Amino acid sequence: MEPVRVNLGPRSYDIRFAGDLGSFADFVRLSVPRAKLALVVADTHTERHATTVRDALESVGLRTGMAVVPSGESSKSLAEFGKLLDALADLPADRQTAVVAVGGGVVGDLAGFAAAAYNRGLPLVMVPTTLLSMVDSSVGGKTGINHAKGKNLIGAFHQPAGVWIDPAFLGTLPDREFRSGLAEVVKYGVIQDAEFFAWQEANAAAILARDLEAVRYLVAKSCRLKADVVEQDEREETGLRAILNYGHTFAHAFETVGGYGAWLHGEAVAAGMVCASRLAEKLGRIPADVTERQVKLLTAFGLPLHPKAEWPIEPMIDVMRRDKKAAAGRLRFVLPTRMGHVELVDGVPEDLVREVLC
Amino acid sequence: MEPVRVNLGPRSYDIRFAGDLGSFADFVRLSVPRAKLALVVADTHTERHATTVRDALESVGLRTGMAVVPSGESSKSLAEFGKLLDALADLPADRQTAVVAVGGGVVGDLAGFAAAAYNRGLPLVMVPTTLLSMVDSSVGGKTGINHAKGKNLIGAFHQPAGVWIDPAFLGTLPDREFRSGLAEVVKYGVIQDAEFFAWQEANAAAILARDLEAVRYLVAKSCRLKADVVEQDEREETGLRAILNYGHTFAHAFETVGGYGAWLHGEAVAAGMVCASRLAEKLGRIPADVTERQVKLLTAFGLPLHPKAEWPIEPMIDVMRRDKKAAAGRLRFVLPTRMGHVELVDGVPEDLVREVLC
Repeated sequence: MEPVRVNLGPRSYDIRFAGDLGSFADFVRLSVPRAKLALVVADTHTERHATTVRDALESVGLRTGMAVVPSGESSKSLAEFGKLLDALADLPADRQTAVVAVGGGVVGDLAGFAAAAYNRGLPLVMVPTTLLSMVDSSVGGKTGINHAKGKNLIGAFHQPAGVWIDPAFLGTLPDREFRSGLAEVVKYGVIQDAEFFAWQEANAAAILARDLEAVRYLVAKSCRLKADVVEQDEREETGLRAILNYGHTFAHAFETVGGYGAWLHGEAVAAGMVCASRLAEKLGRIPADVTERQVKLLTAFGLPLHPKAEWPIEPMIDVMRRDKKAAAGRLRFVLPTRMGHVELVDGVPEDLVREVLC
Repeated sequence: MEPVRVNLGPRSYDIRFAGDLGSFADFVRLSVPRAKLALVVADTHTERHATTVRDALESVGLRTGMAVVPSGESSKSLAEFGKLLDALADLPADRQTAVVAVGGGVVGDLAGFAAAAYNRGLPLVMVPTTLLSMVDSSVGGKTGINHAKGKNLIGAFHQPAGVWIDPAFLGTLPDREFRSGLAEVVKYGVIQDAEFFAWQEANAAAILARDLEAVRYLVAKSCRLKADVVEQDEREETGLRAILNYGHTFAHAFETVGGYGAWLHGEAVAAGMVCASRLAEKLGRIPADVTERQVKLLTAFGLPLHPKAEWPIEPMIDVMRRDKKAAAGRLRFVLPTRMGHVELVDGVPEDLVREVLC
């Protein structure tokens, strides 16, 4: 499989797939040629993968340190961020020292923000081990941690020097996490590519069976679609990149009000997309079948379609008012106009939002 | 006085001087036209200035919050950074909310980093109140906090949306702080502009008397010289921006080993420039008179020429090995080649460094 090239001028990089020409060690030498030191960051679930990665780094002559954070969203904290900075200072890291994130979105976001902040920017290598991080968080340069008042509220744009994807890591991924990752894959279909959405509908069984060919195609296609957006709006300035947040304004509210950890991120996104799509219906922007196709596919993937009934609505609305896309308290959503296309819609009445949350 | 324009494409901004056409309120409307909210950040010394700034912001319709940090270098900490993020979340800040830093380098660096990290980047307005921050830290986009193992080790490049300089603030600046600021002014002469250095030699008395015309010229000239460098190497990638670190590799070592707060930053830079210049002599790069002219001018400005005798040398060398400019432990320094010109010199023998520290 060809590497996926993310074209960002001097910050361009490749997403490479294991099993193609060249080993992980070659990839590291290519991505961070000047690094003599590396800090490998993992969580308690990915420590074993991280040891393999560490051995490969040492085999090409890098001296490495390792930092292991507790698994789970609560590690995206200022405290864990501070500990990674301490670990880098202890190496001691210089400007060429690579931060190698081995894990899912939590490890990537946290280690990525530490890489962004230490010496105002160290080279970052992403080794995503979950489907979600392979198709989403490891691509595009968003890094960050959570704040009690909102997810990913603190962070930086920091493009990786390279991304290494080994679908073999998915072999040990729990079913719930695999399904959660599929939510973002469904999203790319809805926002950018009706054909890709139809491919998922037609291949849902093979995908769920983790058929290697289906998974490799799905990951590479998702990376390419995300890269297409990121290339045109690296820092979310033109508005285009906002389309990637389809379902996410709702999802962040679910995660904040439900507590980080009640749902996996993809689960929140799945229910968020359904809410957003119903909102688009209420605004007369789409016919009901656009929502129904999403409901069917997300159901096939075993993903939730509504926020939990016990979550109070007003605090969710509050979180949405603070959303990064909100401007001075006016609610904004990314909403579909047809399968494969979305738009950023401003000033959505709060009452309609309440209706789709019920 | 004409504003100093810092040309950085989409991140261009003006440094404007009070007393010229237009008020602070006009400047804010021009710099952050979309802001409806602002967080004013000050320290215990600049709280009074901050209140004036706050009133001006509210007079043009911005709703404001205020955060006051303890004065002094120790506020450039992860803990104070976290508190500013809390203050922003409490507003609650949206993407257009301006962070307005009213103070010296500590306030600017800390508030700037919070602005860089919150929502991955809020617009930042700098209102420097010390000479040092007017001529240096408020221009160029470097923000950050300290780590036990090194000054400014954690941070981000985040260009301000505008800088407002009111030399009237200098009226209440303690003498020691004013003199400390002059160290960076001397630096611009040595690294970029022999004529400006000679102007300082000829006008030392007027400068020390804080003659308004002399001070305004000196501030505007320093901003222009720094902007010239920043425009060519915004993120310290080409090596050019490194010239601004003349004297600073030593200075950071003095500040780390002496403890932040033993010396003001400019005092450390003054002694650091003398050490660097003597190092250049030892390497045969300059004749002795280049150092002697610096020694004379810095003496006239009442600034130190050597590290304190009680500071142990080896820990200082250790800090230099970890310096952002060091690569894998090899010592690098910015050294003069003649008055008005410096170069980045690699692989300097540690023994020579020890000699100039004695």
